[in-house]
This record gives sequence, structure tokens and C-alpha cells, in this order.
Amino acid sequence: MRDEFRADLHIVSQLLVDMAEAVRAAMRQATRALLTADRKAAETVIAQDAEVDSIYRQVEERVCDLLARQAPVASDLRAVITALHVAADLERMGDLADHVAKTALRRHPSPAVPAELRKVFTEMAGVADRMAEKIGTVLSKPDADRAAELDRDDDAMDDLHRSLFAVLLSDDWPYGVETAIDATLLGRFYERFADHAVNAGQRVVYLITGEPTA
Amino acid sequence: MRDEFRADLHIVSQLLVDMAEAVRAAMRQATRALLTADRKAAETVIAQDAEVDSIYRQVEERVCDLLARQAPVASDLRAVITALHVAADLERMGDLADHVAKTALRRHPSPAVPAELRKVFTEMAGVADRMAEKIGTVLSKPDADRAAELDRDDDAMDDLHRSLFAVLLSDDWPYGVETAIDATLLGRFYERFADHAVNAGQRVVYLITGEPTA
Repeated sequence: MRDEFRADLHIVSQLLVDMAEAVRAAMRQATRALLTADRKAAETVIAQDAEVDSIYRQVEERVCDLLARQAPVASDLRAVITALHVAADLERMGDLADHVAKTALRRHPSPAVPAELRKVFTEMAGVADRMAEKIGTVLSKPDADRAAELDRDDDAMDDLHRSLFAVLLSDDWPYGVETAIDATLLGRFYERFADHAVNAGQRVVYLITGEPTA
Repeated sequence: MRDEFRADLHIVSQLLVDMAEAVRAAMRQATRALLTADRKAAETVIAQDAEVDSIYRQVEERVCDLLARQAPVASDLRAVITALHVAADLERMGDLADHVAKTALRRHPSPAVPAELRKVFTEMAGVADRMAEKIGTVLSKPDADRAAELDRDDDAMDDLHRSLFAVLLSDDWPYGVETAIDATLLGRFYERFADHAVNAGQRVVYLITGEPTA
């Protein structure tokens, strides 16, 4: 029974690692679509979001099956419920990559991001990528210190988010309201991607240490 | 055992109804703060978000306790897992009311929403209120038809969201980029509030009918 539980939980964990890799790849490709007005990249991200959703449903089914068959308690039960929460965060991260890709597509063949904002979005995407990678790493090999790094990454994301608004609100912003609206929403998509990565990381820390983070 | 399960699940359902009422009240008050630059209303919403978060934690604890003690299977297990998902949606709806209140506070004593946008935000808030009310109703008394109405409400929200952008992008938009950024984010907060209500409604429908909605 115990071995069976471990084996079942391992399958669920592996699905979460797959999800983390998929949403990381999706956000990388969505960023490329955004910064190089790459239509094909945008379309690929949008098409592949269904795959992330499909893995999410598999996690839910596996978890329900596991709960029904094994009736875990204590830390085993906590691990299973955590998997469900982490899957929900990853699913949402996939949606946000999809939103970035759709924004790129809506403006195609024009770039959705003007030259003045390429640097900040490149940096936001870099932080997002690092965070998605860390989620994959700590899911493969639980490491509370590494999971806790996600908070610092999120601070970096928040700083970048503020600097984005500084550009949009500067007196010499030349692009008008439509480009500012796109940039506002895109900024929010990257920032929320980071928030979900932090949530997922906190869940993993809780699982490892038994202590909820603030 | 069976009666005990029913009693435990009833307590969880009641907590969800409490959450639905709390987030509905929060969004009403946040909207008042927004449209009347009411500082006290904004501060109340922000302070009370901790209560919603606290009920969310109670739901999680009750659910874990129930799973550990009762080891439900089949439709009972489905009901318990659904409660967890609905609670997560409601918690996020509370966060979005908090974001609206914070936007109102950031611009106080100026109104965050100019005269031209009062109508559309009043209507978005009206739809959001109706949706939060329906979630509370279907949680108290499961009703698949009523839950399904949430999809139509969400279509109304999407129409309003589009009409918001039409105002922001009209040639005679007189307020510049900062007000457009606020309005863009506010629009997104109401729209996401509605999305979470739809998600919660779909979970309740699934619980009642056993059929996942699209």
C-alpha cells in the first residue's frame, strides 16, 4: 500500500514537472512571438495550451483516483492536496502565456511592443523563465531554499513592472493610448505568471517543511 | 459515518456560502469606493480581505480533515474536491475586489474613473454583483439551470469590457495614458471576477449533473 502510494504520487509529480516544462516553453515562445512579431510562434502557443489543460485534467483524475483508492492521511494527504493546488497554478501560467501570444497575434504584423519597451519586456520574460524553471526543479527535487528564491525573483518582477509604468507615464511617451493598454495588460500577464510561480513555490515549501509561508 | 459525512460537507458548504456573500459585499463596497472616491469604503474592503482568506483556510482545513477521517469515494469525493476548487475561485474574487479598492485609494481624493466611464463601470459592477449572488444561491441550493446562467452573465461582462475599450480608444478620449491604464486594469479586475464566478458555477454544475461543462 505504502509503495503503491509512493508510485502513484510519483506519477502525479511527474505530470506536474511536465506541466512546468510546458508552461515555461509556452512563455518563452509567447515572448518570442511578442518581441519578433512571429505569427507562427504565437499560433503554436495558442494551439498547445490545450495540452497543458489536458495534463491538468490528468492530474485531477490521478489525484481523485489516488484519494479514493489509498485514503491517505497526514503528510501523505497534504502532498496530494498540494499537487492539486500546484497544478491549478501551472494551468493558469499556461493561460497567461496564451494571453501574451494572443496579444502578439492581435497586432501582427505590427509588433505589439514598441522599441522603448523591448528591454523591460525582455527582462520580465527573463525573470518569468527563471521562475518557471525553478518550479520544475523543486518539483523534481524538493529544495526549500530554491523554492524560497522565487520570492526574490518576484520582487525583481515587481520592480520591472513599476519601471514599465514609469515608461508609459513619462511625458515623452509617443505611442498613445492603444499601445499603453497593450503594454499594461502584457505587464499584468507577466506579473501574474510570477505570482502563480510564487504560490506554487510556497505550496512546495509547505510540503517540504510543514510550515506555511507568510 | 454517512450522516457524519453529510454534516461535515454541510459545514464546508456553509463556509463557501459565507465566502460568496463576503466577496459579493466586498465588490459592492469596492465599486462604491471607486465611483464615489469613498476612502473609508476602500479601506474597509482592503481590511476585510483577510477575513475571506481566513474562511478559505478554514475550508482547506475542513476538507483535509474530512478526507482524512471519512475517506470519501465516488460522488462524495467529487463534492469535497469541488468545494476546494470553488473556495479557490472565491478567494481570488476577494482579491480582485481588494484590487479595485486599492485602485480607488491610490487616486483618492480624485476619482479613479472619469465621468465618461462611470456608466460602463456601473454596469460591469452590476453584472459582477449578480454573478456573485448566483454563486451564493447555487451553493445554498444546487440548481444547474441557475448556475448555467452565469455563462450568459459572463457574455454580458465581455460585451461591457469591449465597450470600455471602445471608449478608451475613441479619438476624443480626453484623459491621457494614466487614466487609460487605470481603466484597463479595473476592466480586467471586473472581467476576471466574472471568469472566476463562471469557473465556480461550472464546478457546481459538474457536481449536480456529473457532466463537465465545455
